Amino acid sequence: MSDRPRAAKETPLAIICGGGSLPLAVADAVTRRGRRVVMFPVRGFADPRDFADYPCHLIATGQFGRFRRLAVQEGCRDVVFIGVVLRPALRQIRLDWDTIRQLPRVFAMFRGGDNHLLSSLARIVEDLGFKLHGAHEVAPEILVPQGAIGRHAPGPRHEADIARGLAVLAAIGPFDVGQAVVVADSYVVAIEGAEGTDRMLERVAALRRDGRIPSAAGTGVLVKTPKRGQDRRFDLPSIGPQTVARAAEAGLAGIAVAGGATIIAEPQRVAAAADRVGLFVVGIAAAG
Amino acid sequence: MSDRPRAAKETPLAIICGGGSLPLAVADAVTRRGRRVVMFPVRGFADPRDFADYPCHLIATGQFGRFRRLAVQEGCRDVVFIGVVLRPALRQIRLDWDTIRQLPRVFAMFRGGDNHLLSSLARIVEDLGFKLHGAHEVAPEILVPQGAIGRHAPGPRHEADIARGLAVLAAIGPFDVGQAVVVADSYVVAIEGAEGTDRMLERVAALRRDGRIPSAAGTGVLVKTPKRGQDRRFDLPSIGPQTVARAAEAGLAGIAVAGGATIIAEPQRVAAAADRVGLFVVGIAAAG
Repeated sequence: MSDRPRAAKETPLAIICGGGSLPLAVADAVTRRGRRVVMFPVRGFADPRDFADYPCHLIATGQFGRFRRLAVQEGCRDVVFIGVVLRPALRQIRLDWDTIRQLPRVFAMFRGGDNHLLSSLARIVEDLGFKLHGAHEVAPEILVPQGAIGRHAPGPRHEADIARGLAVLAAIGPFDVGQAVVVADSYVVAIEGAEGTDRMLERVAALRRDGRIPSAAGTGVLVKTPKRGQDRRFDLPSIGPQTVARAAEAGLAGIAVAGGATIIAEPQRVAAAADRVGLFVVGIAAAG
Repeated sequence: MSDRPRAAKETPLAIICGGGSLPLAVADAVTRRGRRVVMFPVRGFADPRDFADYPCHLIATGQFGRFRRLAVQEGCRDVVFIGVVLRPALRQIRLDWDTIRQLPRVFAMFRGGDNHLLSSLARIVEDLGFKLHGAHEVAPEILVPQGAIGRHAPGPRHEADIARGLAVLAAIGPFDVGQAVVVADSYVVAIEGAEGTDRMLERVAALRRDGRIPSAAGTGVLVKTPKRGQDRRFDLPSIGPQTVARAAEAGLAGIAVAGGATIIAEPQRVAAAADRVGLFVVGIAAAG
Protein backbone atom coordinates (compact mmCIF):
# COMPACT_ATOMS: atom_id res chain seq x y z
CA MET A 1 0.00 0.00 0.00
CA SER A 2 1.33 3.39 -0.96
CA ASP A 3 0.88 4.88 2.51
CA ARG A 4 2.88 2.18 4.24
CA PRO A 5 6.22 3.54 5.50
CA ARG A 6 9.23 2.59 3.32
CA ALA A 7 11.13 1.26 6.32
CA ALA A 8 8.57 -1.50 6.70
CA LYS A 9 9.51 -2.75 3.22
CA GLU A 10 13.18 -2.72 3.86
CA THR A 11 13.41 -5.27 6.66
CA PRO A 12 12.05 -8.77 6.27
CA LEU A 13 8.72 -9.41 7.95
CA ALA A 14 8.68 -11.95 10.79
CA ILE A 15 5.52 -14.05 10.59
CA ILE A 16 4.77 -15.94 13.82
CA CYS A 17 2.26 -18.49 12.70
CA GLY A 18 -0.10 -21.19 13.82
CA GLY A 19 -2.05 -23.70 11.78
CA GLY A 20 -4.28 -23.54 8.72
CA SER A 21 -3.66 -22.23 5.23
CA LEU A 22 -3.60 -18.56 6.15
CA PRO A 23 0.07 -18.20 7.12
CA LEU A 24 1.24 -19.37 3.70
CA ALA A 25 -1.35 -17.15 1.99
CA VAL A 26 -0.04 -14.14 3.92
CA ALA A 27 3.60 -15.05 3.23
CA ASP A 28 2.86 -15.37 -0.49
CA ALA A 29 0.92 -12.08 -0.56
CA VAL A 30 3.66 -10.16 1.23
CA THR A 31 6.28 -11.72 -1.07
CA ARG A 32 4.24 -10.67 -4.14
CA ARG A 33 4.39 -7.13 -2.76
CA GLY A 34 8.17 -7.36 -2.88
CA ARG A 35 8.95 -7.84 0.78
CA ARG A 36 10.89 -10.75 2.21
CA VAL A 37 9.36 -12.84 4.98
CA VAL A 38 10.80 -15.07 7.72
CA MET A 39 8.44 -17.71 9.06
CA PHE A 40 8.26 -18.64 12.75
CA PRO A 41 5.84 -21.58 12.96
CA VAL A 42 4.74 -22.42 16.51
CA ARG A 43 5.44 -26.01 17.46
CA GLY A 44 2.30 -28.11 17.72
CA PHE A 45 0.21 -25.71 15.64
CA ALA A 46 2.07 -25.15 12.36
CA ASP A 47 4.23 -27.48 10.30
CA PRO A 48 7.60 -26.02 9.15
CA ARG A 49 7.39 -28.21 6.03
CA ASP A 50 4.58 -25.95 4.80
CA PHE A 51 7.07 -23.10 4.50
CA ALA A 52 9.86 -24.79 2.54
CA ASP A 53 10.10 -21.78 0.19
CA TYR A 54 10.87 -19.37 3.02
CA PRO A 55 13.47 -18.95 5.75
CA CYS A 56 11.84 -20.71 8.68
CA HIS A 57 12.51 -21.20 12.42
CA LEU A 58 10.36 -23.43 14.58
CA ILE A 59 9.57 -21.88 17.98
CA ALA A 60 7.71 -23.24 20.96
CA THR A 61 4.93 -21.41 22.79
CA GLY A 62 6.49 -18.93 25.16
CA GLN A 63 10.03 -18.95 23.68
CA PHE A 64 10.22 -15.19 23.54
CA GLY A 65 14.02 -15.26 23.91
CA ARG A 66 14.57 -17.67 21.05
CA PHE A 67 12.21 -15.69 18.86
CA ARG A 68 13.94 -12.42 19.66
CA ARG A 69 17.43 -13.81 18.95
CA LEU A 70 16.46 -15.37 15.62
CA ALA A 71 14.35 -12.43 14.46
CA VAL A 72 17.18 -10.00 15.24
CA GLN A 73 19.65 -12.28 13.36
CA GLU A 74 17.33 -12.21 10.36
CA GLY A 75 17.12 -8.43 10.55
CA CYS A 76 13.39 -8.35 11.31
CA ARG A 77 11.79 -5.39 13.04
CA ASP A 78 8.15 -5.97 12.11
CA VAL A 79 6.09 -8.91 13.31
CA VAL A 80 2.81 -10.39 12.14
CA PHE A 81 0.92 -13.05 14.04
CA ILE A 82 -1.38 -15.27 11.97
CA GLY A 83 -3.10 -18.61 11.99
CA VAL A 84 -4.77 -20.90 14.44
CA VAL A 85 -2.94 -20.92 17.76
CA LEU A 86 -5.18 -22.42 20.36
CA ARG A 87 -4.91 -21.07 23.86
CA PRO A 88 -1.82 -22.92 24.99
CA ALA A 89 -2.00 -24.60 28.34
CA LEU A 90 0.51 -23.27 30.79
CA ARG A 91 2.18 -26.67 30.85
CA GLN A 92 2.96 -26.37 27.14
CA ILE A 93 5.09 -23.30 27.67
CA ARG A 94 8.84 -23.89 27.23
CA LEU A 95 10.59 -21.46 29.49
CA ASP A 96 13.58 -19.47 28.37
CA TRP A 97 15.27 -16.46 29.90
CA ASP A 98 13.10 -13.79 28.34
CA THR A 99 10.03 -15.78 29.25
CA ILE A 100 11.12 -16.08 32.85
CA ARG A 101 11.60 -12.33 33.05
CA GLN A 102 8.06 -11.99 31.70
CA LEU A 103 6.70 -14.72 33.92
CA PRO A 104 4.37 -12.66 36.11
CA ARG A 105 2.87 -11.22 32.97
CA VAL A 106 2.73 -14.62 31.28
CA PHE A 107 0.76 -16.04 34.18
CA ALA A 108 -1.51 -13.01 34.31
CA MET A 109 -2.29 -13.30 30.63
CA PHE A 110 -3.76 -16.76 31.07
CA ARG A 111 -6.46 -15.42 33.32
CA GLY A 112 -9.45 -14.02 31.46
CA GLY A 113 -10.45 -14.38 27.84
CA ASP A 114 -8.68 -14.51 24.52
CA ASN A 115 -8.62 -10.76 23.96
CA HIS A 116 -6.75 -10.42 27.19
CA LEU A 117 -4.35 -13.25 26.25
CA LEU A 118 -3.62 -11.79 22.86
CA SER A 119 -3.17 -8.19 23.91
CA SER A 120 -0.77 -9.37 26.61
CA LEU A 121 1.19 -11.23 23.96
CA ALA A 122 1.21 -8.09 21.82
CA ARG A 123 2.68 -6.05 24.65
CA ILE A 124 5.40 -8.62 25.25
CA VAL A 125 6.39 -8.68 21.57
CA GLU A 126 6.56 -4.89 21.52
CA ASP A 127 8.57 -4.81 24.75
CA LEU A 128 11.09 -7.10 23.04
CA GLY A 129 11.68 -4.25 20.56
CA PHE A 130 9.47 -5.28 17.64
CA LYS A 131 6.51 -3.59 16.03
CA LEU A 132 3.41 -5.73 15.75
CA HIS A 133 1.25 -5.36 12.62
CA GLY A 134 -2.03 -6.90 11.54
CA ALA A 135 -1.81 -9.46 8.76
CA HIS A 136 -4.49 -7.46 6.94
CA GLU A 137 -2.22 -4.40 7.06
CA VAL A 138 0.65 -6.17 5.30
CA ALA A 139 -1.63 -8.12 2.92
CA PRO A 140 -5.02 -6.36 2.60
CA GLU A 141 -6.08 -8.77 -0.17
CA ILE A 142 -6.73 -11.36 2.54
CA LEU A 143 -9.80 -9.49 3.84
CA VAL A 144 -13.38 -10.50 2.96
CA PRO A 145 -15.00 -7.70 0.91
CA GLN A 146 -18.55 -6.42 1.48
CA GLY A 147 -21.20 -8.40 -0.37
CA ALA A 148 -21.61 -11.94 -1.60
CA ILE A 149 -18.65 -14.12 -2.51
CA GLY A 150 -19.68 -16.65 -5.12
CA ARG A 151 -23.03 -17.10 -6.82
CA HIS A 152 -25.43 -17.32 -3.89
CA ALA A 153 -26.76 -14.47 -1.76
CA PRO A 154 -28.83 -14.45 1.44
CA GLY A 155 -32.62 -14.11 1.13
CA PRO A 156 -34.92 -12.24 3.57
CA ARG A 157 -35.23 -15.29 5.84
CA HIS A 158 -31.44 -15.49 6.07
CA GLU A 159 -31.15 -11.74 6.62
CA ALA A 160 -33.39 -12.16 9.67
CA ASP A 161 -31.15 -14.92 11.03
CA ILE A 162 -28.08 -12.76 10.38
CA ALA A 163 -29.63 -9.84 12.27
CA ARG A 164 -30.46 -12.11 15.21
CA GLY A 165 -26.96 -13.58 15.16
CA LEU A 166 -25.41 -10.10 15.23
CA ALA A 167 -27.65 -9.20 18.17
CA VAL A 168 -26.50 -12.26 20.13
CA LEU A 169 -22.85 -11.50 19.35
CA ALA A 170 -23.33 -7.88 20.46
CA ALA A 171 -24.89 -9.11 23.71
CA ILE A 172 -21.97 -11.41 24.58
CA GLY A 173 -19.38 -8.93 23.27
CA PRO A 174 -18.46 -7.62 26.73
CA PHE A 175 -17.52 -11.10 27.94
CA ASP A 176 -14.53 -11.79 25.68
CA VAL A 177 -16.07 -15.07 24.60
CA GLY A 178 -16.48 -16.70 21.16
CA GLN A 179 -17.21 -14.64 18.12
CA ALA A 180 -19.58 -16.90 16.20
CA VAL A 181 -23.14 -18.17 16.47
CA VAL A 182 -25.46 -20.33 14.41
CA VAL A 183 -29.06 -19.16 14.02
CA ALA A 184 -31.69 -21.15 12.10
CA ASP A 185 -35.15 -19.67 11.55
CA SER A 186 -34.67 -17.35 14.52
CA TYR A 187 -33.60 -20.21 16.78
CA VAL A 188 -30.16 -19.71 18.33
CA VAL A 189 -28.70 -23.18 17.84
CA ALA A 190 -25.12 -22.68 19.04
CA ILE A 191 -22.86 -20.06 20.56
CA GLU A 192 -19.13 -20.44 20.21
CA GLY A 193 -17.06 -20.71 23.38
CA ALA A 194 -13.51 -21.93 23.85
CA GLU A 195 -14.05 -24.73 21.33
CA GLY A 196 -13.73 -22.53 18.24
CA THR A 197 -15.85 -22.24 15.11
CA ASP A 198 -14.95 -25.61 13.56
CA ARG A 199 -16.01 -27.60 16.59
CA MET A 200 -19.14 -25.51 17.00
CA LEU A 201 -20.11 -26.38 13.41
CA GLU A 202 -19.43 -30.07 14.11
CA ARG A 203 -21.79 -29.76 17.06
CA VAL A 204 -24.47 -28.22 14.85
CA ALA A 205 -24.02 -31.07 12.36
CA ALA A 206 -24.55 -33.58 15.19
CA LEU A 207 -27.63 -31.70 16.46
CA ARG A 208 -29.00 -31.74 12.92
CA ARG A 209 -28.41 -35.49 12.60
CA ASP A 210 -30.19 -36.05 15.92
CA GLY A 211 -33.20 -34.07 14.79
CA ARG A 212 -32.61 -31.43 17.45
CA ILE A 213 -32.76 -28.49 15.08
CA PRO A 214 -36.37 -27.88 14.15
CA SER A 215 -35.84 -26.25 10.77
CA ALA A 216 -34.99 -28.36 7.73
CA ALA A 217 -31.48 -28.88 6.39
CA GLY A 218 -30.51 -25.95 4.19
CA THR A 219 -31.61 -23.35 6.75
CA GLY A 220 -29.54 -21.48 9.26
CA VAL A 221 -26.60 -19.13 9.09
CA LEU A 222 -23.15 -19.07 10.66
CA VAL A 223 -22.63 -15.47 11.78
CA LYS A 224 -19.07 -14.56 12.73
CA THR A 225 -17.65 -11.18 13.68
CA PRO A 226 -14.58 -9.79 15.42
CA LYS A 227 -15.00 -9.56 19.14
CA ARG A 228 -15.62 -6.13 20.56
CA GLY A 229 -12.34 -4.56 21.56
CA GLN A 230 -10.43 -7.31 19.79
CA ASP A 231 -6.88 -6.36 18.82
CA ARG A 232 -7.23 -6.52 15.05
CA ARG A 233 -3.50 -6.67 14.58
CA PHE A 234 -3.51 -10.36 15.20
CA ASP A 235 -6.85 -11.76 15.97
CA LEU A 236 -9.30 -11.10 13.17
CA PRO A 237 -11.71 -13.96 12.59
CA SER A 238 -11.00 -16.01 9.49
CA ILE A 239 -12.81 -18.32 7.11
CA GLY A 240 -11.61 -20.74 4.48
CA PRO A 241 -12.82 -23.59 2.26
CA GLN A 242 -12.90 -25.73 5.41
CA THR A 243 -15.43 -23.34 6.99
CA VAL A 244 -17.69 -23.73 3.95
CA ALA A 245 -17.36 -27.53 4.08
CA ARG A 246 -18.24 -27.64 7.77
CA ALA A 247 -21.14 -25.22 7.34
CA ALA A 248 -22.47 -27.48 4.58
CA GLU A 249 -22.13 -30.55 6.81
CA ALA A 250 -24.09 -28.64 9.45
CA GLY A 251 -26.88 -28.16 6.91
CA LEU A 252 -26.65 -24.38 6.91
CA ALA A 253 -27.81 -22.01 4.17
CA GLY A 254 -24.79 -19.76 4.39
CA ILE A 255 -22.09 -17.84 6.20
CA ALA A 256 -22.12 -14.15 7.13
CA VAL A 257 -18.92 -12.47 8.26
CA ALA A 258 -17.84 -8.89 8.88
CA GLY A 259 -16.73 -7.43 5.56
CA GLY A 260 -13.36 -5.71 5.82
CA ALA A 261 -12.71 -7.32 9.20
CA THR A 262 -12.49 -11.03 8.40
CA ILE A 263 -9.53 -12.82 6.91
CA ILE A 264 -10.23 -15.19 4.06
CA ALA A 265 -7.79 -17.90 3.11
CA GLU A 266 -7.92 -18.70 -0.59
CA PRO A 267 -10.96 -16.59 -1.62
CA GLN A 268 -11.31 -18.30 -5.02
CA ARG A 269 -11.45 -21.72 -3.39
CA VAL A 270 -13.98 -20.41 -0.86
CA ALA A 271 -16.21 -19.09 -3.67
CA ALA A 272 -15.87 -22.33 -5.63
CA ALA A 273 -16.64 -24.45 -2.57
CA ALA A 274 -19.67 -22.31 -1.70
CA ASP A 275 -21.01 -22.47 -5.26
CA ARG A 276 -20.55 -26.23 -5.36
CA VAL A 277 -22.55 -26.88 -2.19
CA GLY A 278 -25.06 -24.07 -2.76
CA LEU A 279 -24.13 -21.94 0.26
CA PHE A 280 -23.91 -18.18 0.35
CA VAL A 281 -20.87 -16.47 1.86
CA VAL A 282 -21.43 -12.79 2.46
CA GLY A 283 -19.41 -9.91 3.87
CA ILE A 284 -21.76 -7.77 5.96
CA ALA A 285 -21.50 -4.47 7.79
CA ALA A 286 -20.86 -5.37 11.42
CA ALA A 287 -19.80 -3.13 14.26
CA GLY A 288 -17.40 -5.72 15.72
CA MET B 1 -49.44 -27.51 50.70
CA SER B 2 -52.29 -26.12 52.75
CA ASP B 3 -53.13 -23.37 50.29
CA ARG B 4 -53.54 -25.70 47.35
CA PRO B 5 -57.23 -25.98 46.34
CA ARG B 6 -58.95 -29.16 47.54
CA ALA B 7 -60.24 -29.94 44.05
CA ALA B 8 -56.69 -30.45 42.85
CA LYS B 9 -56.34 -33.31 45.33
CA GLU B 10 -59.49 -35.02 44.28
CA THR B 11 -58.64 -35.85 40.68
CA PRO B 12 -55.56 -37.83 39.77
CA LEU B 13 -52.68 -35.82 38.39
CA ALA B 14 -51.63 -36.53 34.78
CA ILE B 15 -47.84 -36.44 34.49
CA ILE B 16 -46.62 -36.14 30.90
CA CYS B 17 -43.01 -37.10 31.18
CA GLY B 18 -39.73 -37.34 29.36
CA GLY B 19 -36.46 -38.94 30.43
CA GLY B 20 -34.32 -38.83 33.54
CA SER B 21 -35.07 -39.60 37.15
CA LEU B 22 -37.25 -36.55 37.81
CA PRO B 23 -40.61 -37.91 36.62
CA LEU B 24 -40.51 -40.77 39.12
CA ALA B 25 -39.33 -38.41 41.87
CA VAL B 26 -42.31 -36.13 41.18
CA ALA B 27 -44.74 -39.07 41.00
CA ASP B 28 -43.47 -40.38 44.34
CA ALA B 29 -43.62 -36.92 45.97
CA VAL B 30 -47.19 -36.29 44.77
CA THR B 31 -48.21 -39.78 45.93
CA ARG B 32 -46.68 -39.13 49.37
CA ARG B 33 -48.90 -36.04 49.53
CA GLY B 34 -51.91 -38.32 49.11
CA ARG B 35 -52.78 -37.64 45.48
CA ARG B 36 -53.01 -40.28 42.80
CA VAL B 37 -50.95 -39.87 39.62
CA VAL B 38 -51.29 -41.22 36.08
CA MET B 39 -48.08 -41.35 34.06
CA PHE B 40 -47.91 -40.46 30.37
CA PRO B 41 -44.34 -41.22 29.29
CA VAL B 42 -43.44 -39.82 25.87
CA ARG B 43 -42.17 -42.48 23.48
CA GLY B 44 -38.47 -42.20 22.76
CA PHE B 45 -37.77 -40.14 25.87
CA ALA B 46 -39.18 -42.05 28.85
CA ASP B 47 -39.45 -45.76 29.52
CA PRO B 48 -42.88 -46.98 30.74
CA ARG B 49 -41.12 -49.73 32.71
CA ASP B 50 -39.85 -47.03 35.09
CA PHE B 51 -43.44 -46.40 36.20
CA ALA B 52 -44.56 -49.94 36.97
CA ASP B 53 -46.08 -48.79 40.28
CA TYR B 54 -48.41 -46.31 38.60
CA PRO B 55 -51.15 -46.33 35.97
CA CYS B 56 -49.22 -45.57 32.81
CA HIS B 57 -50.01 -44.80 29.14
CA LEU B 58 -47.30 -44.41 26.54
CA ILE B 59 -47.93 -41.48 24.16
CA ALA B 60 -46.03 -40.29 21.13
CA THR B 61 -44.95 -36.70 20.56
CA GLY B 62 -47.90 -34.78 19.22
CA GLN B 63 -50.63 -37.29 20.11
CA PHE B 64 -52.80 -34.68 21.73
CA GLY B 65 -55.96 -36.64 20.92
CA ARG B 66 -54.76 -39.87 22.48
CA PHE B 67 -53.58 -38.00 25.54
CA ARG B 68 -56.91 -36.20 25.92
CA ARG B 69 -58.95 -39.40 25.59
CA LEU B 70 -56.87 -41.36 28.10
CA ALA B 71 -56.55 -38.51 30.58
CA VAL B 72 -60.32 -37.96 30.52
CA GLN B 73 -60.87 -41.72 31.01
CA GLU B 74 -58.58 -41.61 34.04
CA GLY B 75 -60.51 -38.64 35.42
CA CYS B 76 -57.55 -36.24 35.20
CA ARG B 77 -58.06 -32.51 35.03
CA ASP B 78 -54.61 -31.31 36.05
CA VAL B 79 -51.46 -31.88 34.02
CA VAL B 80 -47.80 -31.64 34.88
CA PHE B 81 -45.02 -31.81 32.33
CA ILE B 82 -41.63 -33.02 33.59
CA GLY B 83 -38.38 -34.54 32.42
CA VAL B 84 -36.08 -34.33 29.47
CA VAL B 85 -38.00 -34.02 26.23
CA LEU B 86 -35.67 -32.85 23.54
CA ARG B 87 -37.11 -30.57 20.94
CA PRO B 88 -38.84 -33.17 18.83
CA ALA B 89 -38.19 -32.98 15.13
CA LEU B 90 -41.32 -32.38 13.12
CA ARG B 91 -40.87 -35.77 11.50
CA GLN B 92 -41.20 -37.48 14.88
CA ILE B 93 -44.70 -36.18 15.39
CA ARG B 94 -47.42 -38.85 15.07
CA LEU B 95 -50.46 -37.11 13.77
CA ASP B 96 -53.89 -37.73 15.21
CA TRP B 97 -57.12 -35.82 14.81
CA ASP B 98 -56.57 -33.29 17.58
CA THR B 99 -53.07 -32.73 16.34
CA ILE B 100 -54.28 -32.12 12.82
CA ARG B 101 -56.74 -29.53 14.07
CA GLN B 102 -53.82 -27.89 15.85
CA LEU B 103 -51.49 -28.26 12.92
CA PRO B 104 -50.95 -24.61 12.02
CA ARG B 105 -50.08 -23.97 15.64
CA VAL B 106 -47.89 -27.07 15.83
CA PHE B 107 -45.88 -25.88 12.87
CA ALA B 108 -45.67 -22.35 14.23
CA MET B 109 -44.37 -23.59 17.55
CA PHE B 110 -41.33 -25.15 15.94
CA ARG B 111 -40.12 -21.78 14.75
CA GLY B 112 -38.16 -19.85 17.34
CA GLY B 113 -36.67 -21.01 20.61
CA ASP B 114 -37.64 -23.39 23.36
CA ASN B 115 -39.66 -20.89 25.37
CA HIS B 116 -41.82 -20.39 22.35
CA LEU B 117 -42.14 -24.15 21.77
CA LEU B 118 -43.10 -24.85 25.35
CA SER B 119 -45.56 -22.02 25.78
CA SER B 120 -47.27 -23.14 22.58
CA LEU B 121 -47.53 -26.63 24.00
CA ALA B 122 -48.97 -25.19 27.23
CA ARG B 123 -51.69 -23.36 25.29
CA ILE B 124 -52.61 -26.51 23.39
CA VAL B 125 -52.90 -28.56 26.59
CA GLU B 126 -55.11 -25.89 28.15
CA ASP B 127 -57.23 -25.64 24.99
CA LEU B 128 -57.88 -29.37 25.34
CA GLY B 129 -59.57 -28.59 28.66
CA PHE B 130 -56.80 -29.31 31.15
CA LYS B 131 -55.06 -27.10 33.65
CA LEU B 132 -51.29 -27.11 33.41
CA HIS B 133 -49.30 -26.90 36.65
CA GLY B 134 -45.61 -26.67 37.42
CA ALA B 135 -44.02 -29.79 38.87
CA HIS B 136 -42.65 -27.59 41.65
CA GLU B 137 -46.22 -26.52 42.51
CA VAL B 138 -47.40 -30.08 43.07
CA ALA B 139 -44.16 -31.22 44.70
CA PRO B 140 -42.24 -28.21 46.12
CA GLU B 141 -39.69 -30.50 47.77
CA ILE B 142 -38.11 -31.00 44.34
CA LEU B 143 -36.75 -27.42 44.29
CA VAL B 144 -33.13 -26.56 45.11
CA PRO B 145 -33.05 -24.44 48.31
CA GLN B 146 -30.88 -21.33 48.75
CA GLY B 147 -27.37 -22.11 49.96
CA ALA B 148 -24.95 -24.98 49.68
CA ILE B 149 -26.10 -28.56 49.26
CA GLY B 150 -23.54 -30.91 50.75
CA ARG B 151 -20.29 -30.09 52.50
CA HIS B 152 -18.56 -27.76 50.07
CA ALA B 153 -19.29 -24.08 49.46
CA PRO B 154 -17.98 -21.65 46.83
CA GLY B 155 -15.00 -19.44 47.73
CA PRO B 156 -14.43 -15.84 46.56
CA ARG B 157 -12.80 -17.00 43.31
CA HIS B 158 -15.87 -19.11 42.54
CA GLU B 159 -18.22 -16.30 43.52
CA ALA B 160 -16.52 -14.16 40.87
CA ASP B 161 -17.05 -16.86 38.24
CA ILE B 162 -20.69 -17.22 39.33
CA ALA B 163 -21.24 -13.46 38.98
CA ARG B 164 -19.70 -13.49 35.52
CA GLY B 165 -21.79 -16.49 34.50
CA LEU B 166 -24.96 -14.76 35.66
CA ALA B 167 -23.99 -11.68 33.66
CA VAL B 168 -23.52 -13.76 30.49
CA LEU B 169 -26.86 -15.52 31.05
CA ALA B 170 -28.57 -12.15 31.57
CA ALA B 171 -27.04 -10.88 28.32
CA ILE B 172 -28.29 -13.81 26.25
CA GLY B 173 -31.63 -13.94 28.10
CA PRO B 174 -33.55 -12.05 25.40
CA PHE B 175 -32.61 -14.65 22.77
CA ASP B 176 -34.41 -17.70 24.16
CA VAL B 177 -31.20 -19.71 24.00
CA GLY B 178 -29.54 -22.08 26.50
CA GLN B 179 -29.66 -21.41 30.19
CA ALA B 180 -26.23 -22.54 31.29
CA VAL B 181 -22.61 -21.42 30.99
CA VAL B 182 -19.25 -22.57 32.27
CA VAL B 183 -16.85 -19.90 33.56
CA ALA B 184 -13.34 -20.71 34.82
CA ASP B 185 -11.21 -17.96 36.37
CA SER B 186 -13.26 -15.30 34.54
CA TYR B 187 -12.88 -17.08 31.21
CA VAL B 188 -16.20 -17.96 29.57
CA VAL B 189 -15.45 -21.50 28.43
CA ALA B 190 -18.83 -22.60 27.09
CA ILE B 191 -22.34 -21.29 26.49
CA GLU B 192 -25.18 -23.75 26.17
CA GLY B 193 -27.15 -23.78 22.94
CA ALA B 194 -29.50 -26.42 21.57
CA GLU B 195 -27.19 -29.21 22.77
CA GLY B 196 -28.27 -29.03 26.44
CA THR B 197 -26.26 -28.93 29.65
CA ASP B 198 -24.96 -32.52 29.57
CA ARG B 199 -23.39 -32.18 26.17
CA MET B 200 -22.00 -28.78 27.04
CA LEU B 201 -20.26 -30.34 30.06
CA GLU B 202 -18.91 -33.13 27.83
CA ARG B 203 -17.49 -30.42 25.60
CA VAL B 204 -15.83 -28.72 28.56
CA ALA B 205 -14.33 -32.08 29.61
CA ALA B 206 -12.89 -32.47 26.09
CA LEU B 207 -11.52 -28.90 26.11
CA ARG B 208 -9.91 -29.63 29.47
CA ARG B 209 -8.31 -32.83 28.16
CA ASP B 210 -6.97 -30.94 25.15
CA GLY B 211 -5.39 -28.29 27.37
CA ARG B 212 -7.67 -25.59 25.94
CA ILE B 213 -8.85 -24.31 29.30
CA PRO B 214 -6.06 -22.28 30.85
CA SER B 215 -6.96 -22.74 34.50
CA ALA B 216 -6.12 -25.98 36.29
CA ALA B 217 -8.57 -28.81 36.85
CA GLY B 218 -10.70 -28.08 39.90
CA THR B 219 -11.53 -24.54 38.77
CA GLY B 220 -14.59 -23.28 36.99
CA VAL B 221 -18.28 -23.22 37.72
CA LEU B 222 -21.37 -24.43 35.89
CA VAL B 223 -23.91 -21.61 36.26
CA LYS B 224 -27.46 -22.50 35.32
CA THR B 225 -30.61 -20.42 35.63
CA PRO B 226 -34.14 -20.39 34.24
CA LYS B 227 -34.38 -18.48 31.00
CA ARG B 228 -35.92 -15.05 31.17
CA GLY B 229 -39.64 -15.28 30.50
CA GLN B 230 -39.48 -19.06 30.77
CA ASP B 231 -42.81 -20.71 31.60
CA ARG B 232 -41.94 -22.15 35.00
CA ARG B 233 -44.90 -24.47 34.91
CA PHE B 234 -42.97 -26.95 32.86
CA ASP B 235 -39.54 -25.83 31.99
CA LEU B 236 -37.51 -25.14 35.09
CA PRO B 237 -33.87 -26.15 34.78
CA SER B 238 -32.96 -29.29 36.67
CA ILE B 239 -29.88 -30.96 38.13
CA GLY B 240 -29.23 -34.46 39.39
CA PRO B 241 -26.39 -36.77 40.39
CA GLN B 242 -25.56 -37.03 36.69
CA THR B 243 -24.97 -33.27 36.53
CA VAL B 244 -22.48 -33.55 39.41
CA ALA B 245 -20.71 -36.45 37.70
CA ARG B 246 -20.41 -34.57 34.41
CA ALA B 247 -19.25 -31.38 36.15
CA ALA B 248 -16.57 -33.44 37.92
CA GLU B 249 -15.47 -34.97 34.60
CA ALA B 250 -15.23 -31.42 33.23
CA GLY B 251 -12.84 -30.59 36.08
CA LEU B 252 -15.10 -27.93 37.58
CA ALA B 253 -15.08 -26.67 41.16
CA GLY B 254 -18.83 -26.57 41.49
CA ILE B 255 -22.34 -25.91 40.28
CA ALA B 256 -24.45 -22.80 40.95
CA VAL B 257 -28.16 -22.86 40.20
CA ALA B 258 -31.08 -20.57 40.95
CA GLY B 259 -32.37 -21.44 44.42
CA GLY B 260 -36.13 -21.91 44.44
CA ALA B 261 -36.22 -22.09 40.65
CA THR B 262 -34.28 -25.25 39.85
CA ILE B 263 -35.56 -28.78 40.12
CA ILE B 264 -33.33 -31.30 41.83
CA ALA B 265 -33.75 -35.01 41.30
CA GLU B 266 -32.72 -37.00 44.34
CA PRO B 267 -31.22 -34.23 46.52
CA GLN B 268 -29.58 -36.67 48.96
CA ARG B 269 -27.81 -38.44 46.10
CA VAL B 270 -26.74 -35.07 44.65
CA ALA B 271 -25.26 -34.02 48.00
CA ALA B 272 -23.52 -37.38 48.43
CA ALA B 273 -22.13 -37.28 44.89
CA ALA B 274 -20.89 -33.70 45.34
CA ASP B 275 -19.24 -34.52 48.67
CA ARG B 276 -17.56 -37.57 47.18
CA VAL B 277 -15.95 -35.68 44.28
CA GLY B 278 -15.33 -32.47 46.26
CA LEU B 279 -17.65 -30.20 44.27
CA PHE B 280 -19.90 -27.53 45.68
CA VAL B 281 -23.54 -27.32 44.64
CA VAL B 282 -25.16 -24.06 45.64
CA GLY B 283 -28.59 -22.48 45.28
CA ILE B 284 -28.06 -18.77 44.55
CA ALA B 285 -30.33 -15.77 44.19
CA ALA B 286 -30.82 -15.32 40.45
CA ALA B 287 -33.29 -13.12 38.64
CA GLY B 288 -34.00 -15.73 35.96
